[in-house]
Formats: sequence, C-alpha cells, structure tokens
Amino acid sequence: MINKLVDKIKKQNAPIVVGLDPMMKYIPQQVCKAAFSEFGETLEGAAEAIWQYNKEIIDNIYDIVPAVKPQIAMYEQFGIEGIKAFKKTIDYCHEKDMVVIGDVKRGDIGSTSEAYAVAHLGRVAVGNSRISAFDEDFATVNPYLGSDGINPFIKVCEEEKKGIFILVKTSNPSSGEFQDQLIDGRPLYEKVGEKVAEWGAQCMGNDYSYVGAVVGATYPEMGKVLRRVMPKAYILVPGYGAQGGTGKDLVPFFNEDGLGAIVNSSRGIIAAYAKEEYARFGAEHFGEAARQAALDMIADINGAIGH
Amino acid sequence: MINKLVDKIKKQNAPIVVGLDPMMKYIPQQVCKAAFSEFGETLEGAAEAIWQYNKEIIDNIYDIVPAVKPQIAMYEQFGIEGIKAFKKTIDYCHEKDMVVIGDVKRGDIGSTSEAYAVAHLGRVAVGNSRISAFDEDFATVNPYLGSDGINPFIKVCEEEKKGIFILVKTSNPSSGEFQDQLIDGRPLYEKVGEKVAEWGAQCMGNDYSYVGAVVGATYPEMGKVLRRVMPKAYILVPGYGAQGGTGKDLVPFFNEDGLGAIVNSSRGIIAAYAKEEYARFGAEHFGEAARQAALDMIADINGAIGH
Repeated sequence: MINKLVDKIKKQNAPIVVGLDPMMKYIPQQVCKAAFSEFGETLEGAAEAIWQYNKEIIDNIYDIVPAVKPQIAMYEQFGIEGIKAFKKTIDYCHEKDMVVIGDVKRGDIGSTSEAYAVAHLGRVAVGNSRISAFDEDFATVNPYLGSDGINPFIKVCEEEKKGIFILVKTSNPSSGEFQDQLIDGRPLYEKVGEKVAEWGAQCMGNDYSYVGAVVGATYPEMGKVLRRVMPKAYILVPGYGAQGGTGKDLVPFFNEDGLGAIVNSSRGIIAAYAKEEYARFGAEHFGEAARQAALDMIADINGAIGH
Repeated sequence: MINKLVDKIKKQNAPIVVGLDPMMKYIPQQVCKAAFSEFGETLEGAAEAIWQYNKEIIDNIYDIVPAVKPQIAMYEQFGIEGIKAFKKTIDYCHEKDMVVIGDVKRGDIGSTSEAYAVAHLGRVAVGNSRISAFDEDFATVNPYLGSDGINPFIKVCEEEKKGIFILVKTSNPSSGEFQDQLIDGRPLYEKVGEKVAEWGAQCMGNDYSYVGAVVGATYPEMGKVLRRVMPKAYILVPGYGAQGGTGKDLVPFFNEDGLGAIVNSSRGIIAAYAKEEYARFGAEHFGEAARQAALDMIADINGAIGH
C-alpha cells in the first residue's frame, strides 16, 4: 500500500492528504437541515449530515488528491451511527480509488494491539471465515507502550500489505512535555524515530517502508533531524494551515527526490468555504471551495519544495 | 464517579475489576454455535456470541464485583456489529449498577481529544440536543501527546462527574523501551506520574481524584514509587494472573487505608472454566467458574493487603 501511495503522489504530483474531520460546526446549514429533517436531531441525523458532507468533498477532490485521513474521533462521538458513517466514508473513498489513512491513534499490547490492527487493517476470524471490519489502508499508532504495541501491527501490515504511521513528534503546543524530554542528551522523539527506522526495516515497500511516522509541520527543525534518522519512513505531516504550518516549513520533511512526506490539511480544505479567501464559492458550493483550497495547497507545497 | 467506585469497592470489600475482553477463543463452543446458527459465521454472529458470553458472566459477578473493564479493541475488530455489542454490554452493566471502565486508550489533541472524551464519557451536541454515545463511567487515556490531549478529557470529567485512568507504566515486557528512559536521572513514567498528580488536583472527588493512573502489577517496585508520587490517584492495575502478577505484588499499589488501587483480571476470570483449577465447572457453567475465580482473586488480594 505504501507503493500505491507513493505512485499516486507522483502521478497526481500532490504530496497531500485531506483530513476528513467533519465537526458539526463546519457542516453547512443546508446539509444539516436536510439530514435533520429526515432523521431528526439524533445521532442518525448527525451521521447522515457527516456522510453527505464527506461525499460532496470526496466527489470534488478524488481526482487531484491521492489520500484522505478520516479522524475516527469525529465519528466515534456520534456512537454507532457515527461509526457507520466512518465505514461508509472509507468504502466510498475506495470506490474512488483514494488511499485511506485511518487516523485512529490506537495503541495497546499483545493480543489487544493485534485486535486493533485486525479491526483497521486486517481480517478477523469468525469460525472459518475471515472478514474485514473497517479496512483502511493505513492507520496511525501510538508508540508509548513500546514494541509489544507495534509488532502486532507490523505483522498485519506484512500479511495485508498495509501500513502504519507511528506518532513521533506531534504538532500540538504541549507535545514537548514528554516527547522533548532529554535522554542521554537527546530528545525522546528521536529515540522513537530510531525505533521507527528499526521497525520499518522489517517491512519495506519498493523505496519506502510500510512503517511511517507522524511529525508535526509546526516543528520543522525537529522534522529535519527526524528525516535523517528515519530516511525510509514516509512522514505524515499534520499542522499545515489551521495549526500554523506553511509551505516553506515543510521543506525539511521531504527527501531530495521530492518524496518522503505527505502533508495533511483538514479544516483548511473541508471548511474552506467559511474562509474569506474562498467566500466567493458560498456555503452552497463547499465542495468546489474544498477543491480550490486543495489545488492552492498543492501549489504552495510544490512551490516550496521546488517540485 | 470516583466516589461511587470507592464506595462500591468498600461495600463489596473487593478492589477488583473484571476485564471483559471476549476473544473468540475464550467463548465456549455452545455459545458460538448458538450465535452462528442464528446469524451465520458473520460479524453479527460473532457480536451475538460476545454479547451472550458477557451477559452470562455479568449475571454471575455483578453482586460481588464493583466494576468491569471492557477492552474496546476486542469489539472493534468485529466492526460496527462488534461496537454494538460493546454498547449493549455497557448498558447492561449499568442496569446491574456496575461501574464501567472503558479500556479505550484514546489520546489525541484539542478538539479531537474532546471528541473522544465526549464519545466515551460525555454528551455530543446535535442541533439543540445533547446525546450520550457510549456512556462509560471511566476511560483509559494515553499521555504521549501531553496536556493538550488530557485537558479536554478533564473538562468532560468535571462536567459529567466521570473519570479517566492515564497510562503511566504499562504491564507489558517492552513498556520500558520509552517509559523507563531516564530524564535527569528519573524515568519518564515518574514524570508522567507527576503530571497525573498535577492534572488530578484539578478535579478531586471526596478522597481520590477523578484522574487515576494505569500501572502494571508486573512492576511492583515502580508501583511503590508511583503510589507516593500520585497519592490521590486511584491506580488501575492490569497484569494480575495471566500476565504474571500475584496478590503479594499488589501491596505497594495500595494506600494504608486499603484503598487507592483496583486490580484487573481479564482472561483469569472470564475464561476461568478453561483452567485446570476450575475445570470442575465445565464449559457449560463458565459463568459460575468466573464467579468462583473472582471470589478467589478477592480473597488473594485482601489476604495480601491484610484487609
């Protein structure tokens, strides 16, 4: 799947992923109104609004953007109905041949980590059948529990040719509280980065590993170091746009081949219609606003990395 | 909810929680057979088997055990049907007045962490309504992202009088890879423990905080230190039984009042019928075997802590 991701990034010349994090406040009123009039102000109504919103955005970007990253928390808060919308979104993206990165940040140990890996990337045994549950292409994973948490994911990645992105240095202001702590003079995130390189060597695609890393756009200096520490890891870079990262901050995350990083934007794309810059589209045409914002983001990043 | 948990532990004189981690291989054949004959070897069939298995165990322990800890990964692997069984289990435990600790190990930042907190402990806004999604009483949370990940949970805990257990030192063999790394001569888990104490001071119940910690039974020496570092945090202790922890290993996790810790056992209770010790019950009576194993665990721990 890492090979497919790299191929799509090359072909579309677009090292970006759109975060499908459909908060209710981003969803245009007409979409909510239609959903609520059919299902009421219920979890089902909210899930329908999310799904219709996502579908419109996907229809407007699938031919120019290689991947989406649905954030499961935004679906999970609507319970079972929300989870159904999450699954429907994944399936629809696959129909449109997009790569799906499940931003699930799961992490546990042993058989429990294996159950998460199976849930999101693999197939579960039921009697003599083996059945996919959510079937994303990649999942994000938390490293705090060490190898016991990661190895079960790697096993499933090998079997299914799927991938993971391990949290190394997150984009938020307080990420340093633990991640930046110095161990023998070097920060914890570097130590995690070294383990990512080690884990990744076990399952390589053509040029990059099935094991990638998450490093926030808001920390370009650290991105530079981590790029060197994990040369074969694709870096998933959140924090562009709304969180403050800009095109030029992203240069250190890429390798010289112009590859090695995929930059996420969520509300900057999916709620572009609400920004002054794209107000001309109006809330009615939020899908077209998202497309324009994606095109502008691609141009910004390709301009910065000279690609 | 921490007050309710402490009250129930005192009243039942049972500082234990039963992990409802229903792996298919633990579920007696007659339960699977009945479910598969109704729904086939499908996700729905698996979910039905899980639910029937859980229900029988709950019916046999609810009057002697204060709390359950369903591990969501074991449900999530069966997709939407699995998640329905998770929710059904929570609701049934509430009917039986048990405290429910959702072992979800979620952790993200800002609005995303808030969405997880809302999903599991709070109520989500849909139009003018506010609706509960999963409605556990406690959730486990991963600290790797720092305060930005924890504060949204604390906000929801304050609003809803619910609680969290933050991973500090996990029970698995490789937990030391990152958690034991020395920072200024002291391990990372101690630093996380200090933050737990700090976060917990913001939302206190009567004697203990709404913010607790997870520390594995397999590391009693570290438990001793952490008990001192976070005197007001309830400690959720996994790793008893199957993972190797015994009654006497648990003494350091308790305060002198005989409180301050709640010890988890999962397969040691729910799959007791498969152990030689409880073979006399037979697979038909797996619920009674679970009850006996819970009684024995309570006696073992109370004996060790002299309570």
